[in-house]
Amino acid sequence: MTKTVSIVGGSGYTGGELLRLLLDHPGVTMRAVTSRSNAGDPIHRKHPNLRGRSDLVFTSPDEVEACDVLFLCMPHGQAATEIDKWAGLADLVIDLSADFRLRSPDAYKDWYGSEHPAPARLAEAAYGLPELERERIAKATLISGVGCNATAMNLALLPLARAGLIDRVIADIKVGSSEAGAEPSASSHHPERSRAVRSYALTGHRHAAEVHQALGEFTLDVSVTAIEMVRGVLCTAHVIPTEPVAMKDLWKLYRGAYANEPFVRLVNERQGLHRLPDPAVLGGSNYADVGFGVDERTGRIVALGAIDNLMKGAAGSAVQSMNVALGLEETTGLTFPGLHPA
Amino acid sequence: MTKTVSIVGGSGYTGGELLRLLLDHPGVTMRAVTSRSNAGDPIHRKHPNLRGRSDLVFTSPDEVEACDVLFLCMPHGQAATEIDKWAGLADLVIDLSADFRLRSPDAYKDWYGSEHPAPARLAEAAYGLPELERERIAKATLISGVGCNATAMNLALLPLARAGLIDRVIADIKVGSSEAGAEPSASSHHPERSRAVRSYALTGHRHAAEVHQALGEFTLDVSVTAIEMVRGVLCTAHVIPTEPVAMKDLWKLYRGAYANEPFVRLVNERQGLHRLPDPAVLGGSNYADVGFGVDERTGRIVALGAIDNLMKGAAGSAVQSMNVALGLEETTGLTFPGLHPA
Amino acid sequence: MTKTVSIVGGSGYTGGELLRLLLDHPGVTMRAVTSRSNAGDPIHRKHPNLRGRSDLVFTSPDEVEACDVLFLCMPHGQAATEIDKWAGLADLVIDLSADFRLRSPDAYKDWYGSEHPAPARLAEAAYGLPELERERIAKATLISGVGCNATAMNLALLPLARAGLIDRVIADIKVGSSEAGAEPSASSHHPERSRAVRSYALTGHRHAAEVHQALGEFTLDVSVTAIEMVRGVLCTAHVIPTEPVAMKDLWKLYRGAYANEPFVRLVNERQGLHRLPDPAVLGGSNYADVGFGVDERTGRIVALGAIDNLMKGAAGSAVQSMNVALGLEETTGLTFPGLHPA
Amino acid sequence: MTKTVSIVGGSGYTGGELLRLLLDHPGVTMRAVTSRSNAGDPIHRKHPNLRGRSDLVFTSPDEVEACDVLFLCMPHGQAATEIDKWAGLADLVIDLSADFRLRSPDAYKDWYGSEHPAPARLAEAAYGLPELERERIAKATLISGVGCNATAMNLALLPLARAGLIDRVIADIKVGSSEAGAEPSASSHHPERSRAVRSYALTGHRHAAEVHQALGEFTLDVSVTAIEMVRGVLCTAHVIPTEPVAMKDLWKLYRGAYANEPFVRLVNERQGLHRLPDPAVLGGSNYADVGFGVDERTGRIVALGAIDNLMKGAAGSAVQSMNVALGLEETTGLTFPGLHPA
Repeated sequence: MTKTVSIVGGSGYTGGELLRLLLDHPGVTMRAVTSRSNAGDPIHRKHPNLRGRSDLVFTSPDEVEACDVLFLCMPHGQAATEIDKWAGLADLVIDLSADFRLRSPDAYKDWYGSEHPAPARLAEAAYGLPELERERIAKATLISGVGCNATAMNLALLPLARAGLIDRVIADIKVGSSEAGAEPSASSHHPERSRAVRSYALTGHRHAAEVHQALGEFTLDVSVTAIEMVRGVLCTAHVIPTEPVAMKDLWKLYRGAYANEPFVRLVNERQGLHRLPDPAVLGGSNYADVGFGVDERTGRIVALGAIDNLMKGAAGSAVQSMNVALGLEETTGLTFPGLHPA
Repeated sequence: MTKTVSIVGGSGYTGGELLRLLLDHPGVTMRAVTSRSNAGDPIHRKHPNLRGRSDLVFTSPDEVEACDVLFLCMPHGQAATEIDKWAGLADLVIDLSADFRLRSPDAYKDWYGSEHPAPARLAEAAYGLPELERERIAKATLISGVGCNATAMNLALLPLARAGLIDRVIADIKVGSSEAGAEPSASSHHPERSRAVRSYALTGHRHAAEVHQALGEFTLDVSVTAIEMVRGVLCTAHVIPTEPVAMKDLWKLYRGAYANEPFVRLVNERQGLHRLPDPAVLGGSNYADVGFGVDERTGRIVALGAIDNLMKGAAGSAVQSMNVALGLEETTGLTFPGLHPA
Repeated sequence: MTKTVSIVGGSGYTGGELLRLLLDHPGVTMRAVTSRSNAGDPIHRKHPNLRGRSDLVFTSPDEVEACDVLFLCMPHGQAATEIDKWAGLADLVIDLSADFRLRSPDAYKDWYGSEHPAPARLAEAAYGLPELERERIAKATLISGVGCNATAMNLALLPLARAGLIDRVIADIKVGSSEAGAEPSASSHHPERSRAVRSYALTGHRHAAEVHQALGEFTLDVSVTAIEMVRGVLCTAHVIPTEPVAMKDLWKLYRGAYANEPFVRLVNERQGLHRLPDPAVLGGSNYADVGFGVDERTGRIVALGAIDNLMKGAAGSAVQSMNVALGLEETTGLTFPGLHPA
Repeated sequence: MTKTVSIVGGSGYTGGELLRLLLDHPGVTMRAVTSRSNAGDPIHRKHPNLRGRSDLVFTSPDEVEACDVLFLCMPHGQAATEIDKWAGLADLVIDLSADFRLRSPDAYKDWYGSEHPAPARLAEAAYGLPELERERIAKATLISGVGCNATAMNLALLPLARAGLIDRVIADIKVGSSEAGAEPSASSHHPERSRAVRSYALTGHRHAAEVHQALGEFTLDVSVTAIEMVRGVLCTAHVIPTEPVAMKDLWKLYRGAYANEPFVRLVNERQGLHRLPDPAVLGGSNYADVGFGVDERTGRIVALGAIDNLMKGAAGSAVQSMNVALGLEETTGLTFPGLHPA
């Protein structure tokens, strides 16, 4: 029997991707999708790709009924405040905001600037990246979604961190415009944003906290540049290693880490046009493409991680985590491979 | 039991889309995919989105063995010359070139400038757009792929043509860069092609012949403009009608024509951002979105047809036609709805 | 001695282009540039390309003093209401809104839906396209800016209209995102607008009125499609002629009309990549590139007009008109040729 | 009296920009522009923005006559082989290839893999970035053009290097498609290059040699990522400093270094949309926009340099250097400020 699923806050881009995935997911049945400002509208008003796929209309968040799985896609801060209410409605809550990503209330305060409204829940939540904590997710009743930039960093760096090879990382991250969400703003105005190469977070990006939690302590510098792209993240992680490494060592580490991961692909070719990870071929897919190189002159390792921020960096990992938590085949509903050309 | 399928000429964009669709298609099993110049390479060398999805390598076209369904993706002119050979290898041949689109040898000569090499086959071939000739496709052993621009025109205009409402059509068609295929050229060089608004076929586009064959005779002017886009066609068909029509008449005609079509959606909203067909949300999907309007000052009808040229305009319609010919559910393997935002 | 110039409403895109042109114009001296909401800010806050070019700061429109030439860049409707006040401050007023484009109060009401607030001024204003009414501009004290789409149509069609060759025109116009101005909106949100092919004015575009005023009466259908581009308009005007014409006739007509025009170039090459007008090479320039073709099968003429909407379609023509009105060399300050590649 | 100028190899993008600049330059008169494969064609066949600006046609390089200044835009390696011939034709030769950028024959061999064909000329050549060696340029008879990526790095880092503050630099450089020149290739094919985020030089970029020559020895890691853009370079230089620095120290250093530079602008705003250098507003201009930040958690400095690769990174700096060498006002012919929006 399929599980019943609802989405609170389903008019944004993450909500739209969840809907796309869940409407075709053989293990679940969509119940409600809420949007206070769009209540009463058919979902294709906001998600035009879903026209003809469902008769769902947005409902008020006040009308959500009990279900098996509840996805929360609310503005950062709101889920933490309302978590008791939502947790009372479903066996499994998956929150895609940043509210439950950090296990430590101190880290939360340090990076988000205020006390966490529900600190007791932090220890309870699993971090929804199965590549990091699959077993914890399997038993969880509260799963946190992932930071998109954090995910690109974590998957690029995980094998190096586990091997203790990281002295310092400078993560130079290129992102598309959908990272900023579905609300128009001066910075998203097309004539301004088109072909911009905008250093929007030169220093101090909060996703660094998720990397430290996942991979441990090392000096981590993060800069984020917005480029002409809608979906996609490329993390170029420049790693100063604790000891010299050769390409064959890296191959061994990365193969060891990811051989059994269904959604992580190593991309490191000597021929052709597509030699290294590129988010351009990942739109709509749940893959994380990972690659690496070594600078022979300086010893620097370059570790690359490419994802679709709305998928592996948000809705895709959330559904993957749901699959793990429900005991379903982990790839269920997530098999779209992406498009080429795109 | 699944059917065996091979692709001749699988390194281009249409071949890549066929592979994407067929590798995940529950009714078929991929056998060979050929590419003379890439023989021996894994398919992900050319189709990076398919990395990790298959162990297939390109083989030589000389090695193709008998199978149930054979897709031909060869340069225009080649399939017609070699058709006897390929027809001998498979019960069903689906040719995605222009070689078998026109039923009349005279029309072929008129538009393509030379005698058809296998005129006897022309009458035999079905035109692979189920919305036009589903019954013929169901019985065919040779199916022709469709012209992408022709498909956008045909689906935009079909209800009007059947109602005898068309006096003259001026079809102004906007296309992306993937229409020109996977081979680099001066005109596809990124600094030149990026943001170009290039009137590349001001007059005389060959796809007009496919429209006349499908919809009958009327004055048809076609102009094609290449715009900044990779996938996608939008046909803006300006129709001078034989008699005045009102919006409610158009709704009736279009609903009547397409109510039971699984891949044609009517898009004509009064609210929201997505009021009319836009190829931007169709990438990777097999939908054709159709819309219309009437100019109250002049009586002109504007009929819009939007598709992904590589899908509904090529590989998607080909697989849809295969499904029809094999007696499978018509939407099998074609359920990806497209992405938003993209 | 140079003339003093001020701009009312200088924080938008048209204001920015006027500033770029006028700051380097040898015949004028910039006085004030106003913006109520940005008063006190240096102009490079809004126009980052002008950083280091001027010490000007935005001032309040209430502080504008008398000057020789006053440019008005206000929301449509406002200039007409305030025209007496502004006309009292300068010998020459150039208004870039739509308020004074139509000479006939009836046409204004018909297309803009309300009575004109200052109908007496309509007959007085010159239409600021020197190719249309240079002599009138030379004597004017009130000059209206042009509609960008109207300008692309007018310059594409002028030689045909003068020759009485137009029976009906269907103008299919492709535009960039800067046409909608500098204010963010849902429709300009980058993830939605990027690569959109949006039929935003299927019928009933107001610029048709400017074409009728300039070229006379014929059936004119206009459709506008927003495409991935920031600056630029391409008008593809499909003309059903009153009698058959040949290419050599068109060459004669267009050469006759434009031989002495400094900003109109005929583009109709048989070789190379750049055979027909394309706005991609016109960014920042005041050129209008014009081309044409004839469909031998149907007799249709295709007339093309490409411009930069912010230049020849707004600020460029305004400065050109100012040059004419001030008796300066017409090309002064307007010699930037555009970029390739861009 | 103006100087006579010719260009050898004028059909590419750098040649096109030189033509654009020199045709409007009041201090020079264009003589010949050569292109072996386009000899006899009007220059607008390759440079469509220059249509109507000149009657020049491409000539054979064999026909170049003596002139005052000769610009060489030939494939890397060719100028070094032919330098005696060209130096015999002009008082001043400006070579835009990489052939004369490095003063040391050993460095050349180290980075370019072969012996330099004319090592004696290396010591003689000035490096054509006036911000680095204005006095040397003023006396030179042979000036080398600059590497575009090197220029973005050099101008971002110069104040830090002069202050001895650099321990290690990781330069993460984002580039557009015009960097690869005007020749089509598989990697420049629009469907592949559009929206690509391609790590094309993960390690070992040759422009590092130009940085070491200009700024001295420190550990320098360079990675280059091709993004969706035609013109433009953004260098994000992550600097590990030799000692802690504060923002006010950086302001002092950068102001000190660039206060008198006509083409270097400091961009570091606390408000508005355009706070840091972005190549999007630099197309066609000779400005280098420079900015910086400090990561308070880690001490890292981020130094940013943005240029138009075809201008400040090639033709613009070359003309600026010519102005210096000829004793002209340094900004002559280089005053175009760039466009916004673009």
